[in-house]
Amino acid sequence: MSHAPRLAVYAGSFDPVTLGHMDVMQRGAGLFDRLVVAVGVHPKRKPLFDSTERLAMLTQSTAHLANLEVASFEGLLIDFCNSIGARLLIRGLRHTMDFEYELQMAQANADMAPEIVTLFMPTSSQFGFITASLVREIASHDGDVSRYVPEVVRGALKEKLGRR
Amino acid sequence: MSHAPRLAVYAGSFDPVTLGHMDVMQRGAGLFDRLVVAVGVHPKRKPLFDSTERLAMLTQSTAHLANLEVASFEGLLIDFCNSIGARLLIRGLRHTMDFEYELQMAQANADMAPEIVTLFMPTSSQFGFITASLVREIASHDGDVSRYVPEVVRGALKEKLGRR
Amino acid sequence: MSHAPRLAVYAGSFDPVTLGHMDVMQRGAGLFDRLVVAVGVHPKRKPLFDSTERLAMLTQSTAHLANLEVASFEGLLIDFCNSIGARLLIRGLRHTMDFEYELQMAQANADMAPEIVTLFMPTSSQFGFITASLVREIASHDGDVSRYVPEVVRGALKEKLGRR
Amino acid sequence: MSHAPRLAVYAGSFDPVTLGHMDVMQRGAGLFDRLVVAVGVHPKRKPLFDSTERLAMLTQSTAHLANLEVASFEGLLIDFCNSIGARLLIRGLRHTMDFEYELQMAQANADMAPEIVTLFMPTSSQFGFITASLVREIASHDGDVSRYVPEVVRGALKEKLGRR
Amino acid sequence: MSHAPRLAVYAGSFDPVTLGHMDVMQRGAGLFDRLVVAVGVHPKRKPLFDSTERLAMLTQSTAHLANLEVASFEGLLIDFCNSIGARLLIRGLRHTMDFEYELQMAQANADMAPEIVTLFMPTSSQFGFITASLVREIASHDGDVSRYVPEVVRGALKEKLGRR
Amino acid sequence: MSHAPRLAVYAGSFDPVTLGHMDVMQRGAGLFDRLVVAVGVHPKRKPLFDSTERLAMLTQSTAHLANLEVASFEGLLIDFCNSIGARLLIRGLRHTMDFEYELQMAQANADMAPEIVTLFMPTSSQFGFITASLVREIASHDGDVSRYVPEVVRGALKEKLGRR
Repeated sequence: MSHAPRLAVYAGSFDPVTLGHMDVMQRGAGLFDRLVVAVGVHPKRKPLFDSTERLAMLTQSTAHLANLEVASFEGLLIDFCNSIGARLLIRGLRHTMDFEYELQMAQANADMAPEIVTLFMPTSSQFGFITASLVREIASHDGDVSRYVPEVVRGALKEKLGRR
Repeated sequence: MSHAPRLAVYAGSFDPVTLGHMDVMQRGAGLFDRLVVAVGVHPKRKPLFDSTERLAMLTQSTAHLANLEVASFEGLLIDFCNSIGARLLIRGLRHTMDFEYELQMAQANADMAPEIVTLFMPTSSQFGFITASLVREIASHDGDVSRYVPEVVRGALKEKLGRR
Repeated sequence: MSHAPRLAVYAGSFDPVTLGHMDVMQRGAGLFDRLVVAVGVHPKRKPLFDSTERLAMLTQSTAHLANLEVASFEGLLIDFCNSIGARLLIRGLRHTMDFEYELQMAQANADMAPEIVTLFMPTSSQFGFITASLVREIASHDGDVSRYVPEVVRGALKEKLGRR
Repeated sequence: MSHAPRLAVYAGSFDPVTLGHMDVMQRGAGLFDRLVVAVGVHPKRKPLFDSTERLAMLTQSTAHLANLEVASFEGLLIDFCNSIGARLLIRGLRHTMDFEYELQMAQANADMAPEIVTLFMPTSSQFGFITASLVREIASHDGDVSRYVPEVVRGALKEKLGRR
Repeated sequence: MSHAPRLAVYAGSFDPVTLGHMDVMQRGAGLFDRLVVAVGVHPKRKPLFDSTERLAMLTQSTAHLANLEVASFEGLLIDFCNSIGARLLIRGLRHTMDFEYELQMAQANADMAPEIVTLFMPTSSQFGFITASLVREIASHDGDVSRYVPEVVRGALKEKLGRR
Repeated sequence: MSHAPRLAVYAGSFDPVTLGHMDVMQRGAGLFDRLVVAVGVHPKRKPLFDSTERLAMLTQSTAHLANLEVASFEGLLIDFCNSIGARLLIRGLRHTMDFEYELQMAQANADMAPEIVTLFMPTSSQFGFITASLVREIASHDGDVSRYVPEVVRGALKEKLGRR
């Protein structure tokens, strides 16, 4: 029996992917044999970018990480993990409000699927204030988001929100 | 190049080891090839159990986990990790006050040793209120700690604190 | 003059009632002569279950608690308390984010109606992660909520959300 | 069988009693048939006022509350509650850091003594910043604490700390 | 070169202005040569009062503060600050959840516009529980908000929400 | 009457001064006509550096800030502020635990001395994890603190703690 968590999942909305997400993915890809980045699709919510766009931006931004794959999922995250045989779930943590919500979700997931372990990766201090919603807000005012998102996202935001 | 975190470190004071710690070690041992449990020794602090006692209780309580070793260290935790070639540091998280302190330590460690990644493992909800200091407090009043610590610790606490 | 708080109110949305709520009601019914469970009705919000459904599920789930009654109210909670002569308001508390909001509401209520005292009942640790919104989320993905809600709610959720 | 919590316990260190404590006792005495204020005695800690002094100040400050008694206890609080037949434990809550610690203690107590229920009473907003340690700090600098403590405590602080 | 922050900005939604806001403005106007109160206008959000109404209520409520002006802005707050030459941004802080969000915004603003410094002014303890959304909620139930808002707001709320 | 806060006080223990403190002082000196950095002296506490050493390191580290002075004080901070005619008190804020304590102190100070206003300056994100106690801890293990403290402090720490 092998103990190595060859496969870990990092899930989120990525609407859009930020350099904070990139930091987690970069370090996560270095820790595990295979890292699956899972984009949650919620039929009732209205993201700025649809799931096809979010997948495309993620795929392009992570092309240099050979052992990282991008996928989307509908339904419960633990069901997705089980469907691909992942026992390890990575969540990024920026601050206390994040933590409270994430702890609650991790305890619920542990209760429903004890075979899956959630591990939190704290954001690097320089990325602590970057959130996808902040990025959308800044971009909607034609502010400069180039220090917060990958190049491809900057262009996509300009196209979608700029020129008002 | 292998990405697998074959070796992870789980560090703490373990004064004494509780079932909350046991829960983290059990799940951690299932995730990684090798888990080193590191007992911090601080010359100036006065623990209830000295480091020899803490190591003995940990070793006895984790005898069933074949890929787990117990060690002690003095100095900076990141120096210990580097000395054994560990790139992954596991910390248990119970609640928000834990989190604030741990986030700060993780960011400091990431700044000093970027090659080491800290991951937080949230405590199972049923162990959320168990701390070593609570256990010491209850035991000092001859209260029953059998639901909170391994059998060997219960005996050691009785010997050290009981019968007053 | 009698000091006993013969009558306490436990208010919420109960959309739907969970085992966390049940835990508070069970212990509350044991503490007070009469416990009124008050379902808040907000004309502008769109709950999953309408107030008639929520009242019915609560009534059925608490049938074994003889000194507990279920009622609904519109308007300010303190006005409802005064209308039935209750001087004691019970609120369940799960974690820190709950607490901040609840403290603010309790201080506002104490300012508007000093004759009413708010007391917080902490959730048992095994129910700390259960919220009505989590239950709705799981059920919407055909997940198993049987460990989190009374039997009658499980059926109602299946009927309302399942089989899509 | 009567459900009324005729007897409640309000425990603390009261080193010294503040107007924040007074606020909780005043409202608690109005809610329950009998309120026992329990002064914790910890042989190893060094309070500013010894337990005899703390009991005397509490007794004097609460003389107008006929159904309130003052007592001291050593050991576990739940053992004290059981020894006097109290099933209800009242704790004052000022802010989030209080809450985290108190939630943990309440969950531990509920685990050890499920027959006892802890209820938190939020401090009135005007007393939120008053703590016994703040009072000791201000008094040690000959500052004016008259708005934060009962008259008898003001004199005792002057005698113990003033005129240096 | 002069160091004095002759000009400070205090920004918010003010939907409607509360006595908590008034407390910050009163003290802020006493600290700085000129205080500009900036009402954020977000085309996509639907406030209870439109920006013209919010400006009018603010202007009327602050008529006694000679060095305070009211203005509205669209877009990024830092762009507004720069447009009027303000290097100091004042934010009111009530409690922990406020703080987390405000810290994140302040760090983002400092990253985008290092020349602007954010300073937080803690709310006086008696106003800690007052929020504009609480005021709207109470008023929508015909509750009494006269202790929480300026006179002019009380009338405006009655006109907009009362008599249902 | 002039409104300008020509004089602000920034107080702390500075045991020792860190780059986080330096960041606050640098920005504070740019905002106010005169900034007094006040080193608290508590006869009963045992700092690593005595007040003379702490003053010397602060003076040396801030020599380039012409409008900044260093002073020490015993007793209540508000008494010190009043003694030098300062109406503005600046406090650095790093995270939530800081905030809770600081809010409490600010509300107590506002109650005792309403003429003095406390303003919080959030730490730049890259300094969020740096505390004086962390610096002492790292230095006591001969770790490298050069990225966290001014040059003069690095030498002083080596002299005081190195050589083991």
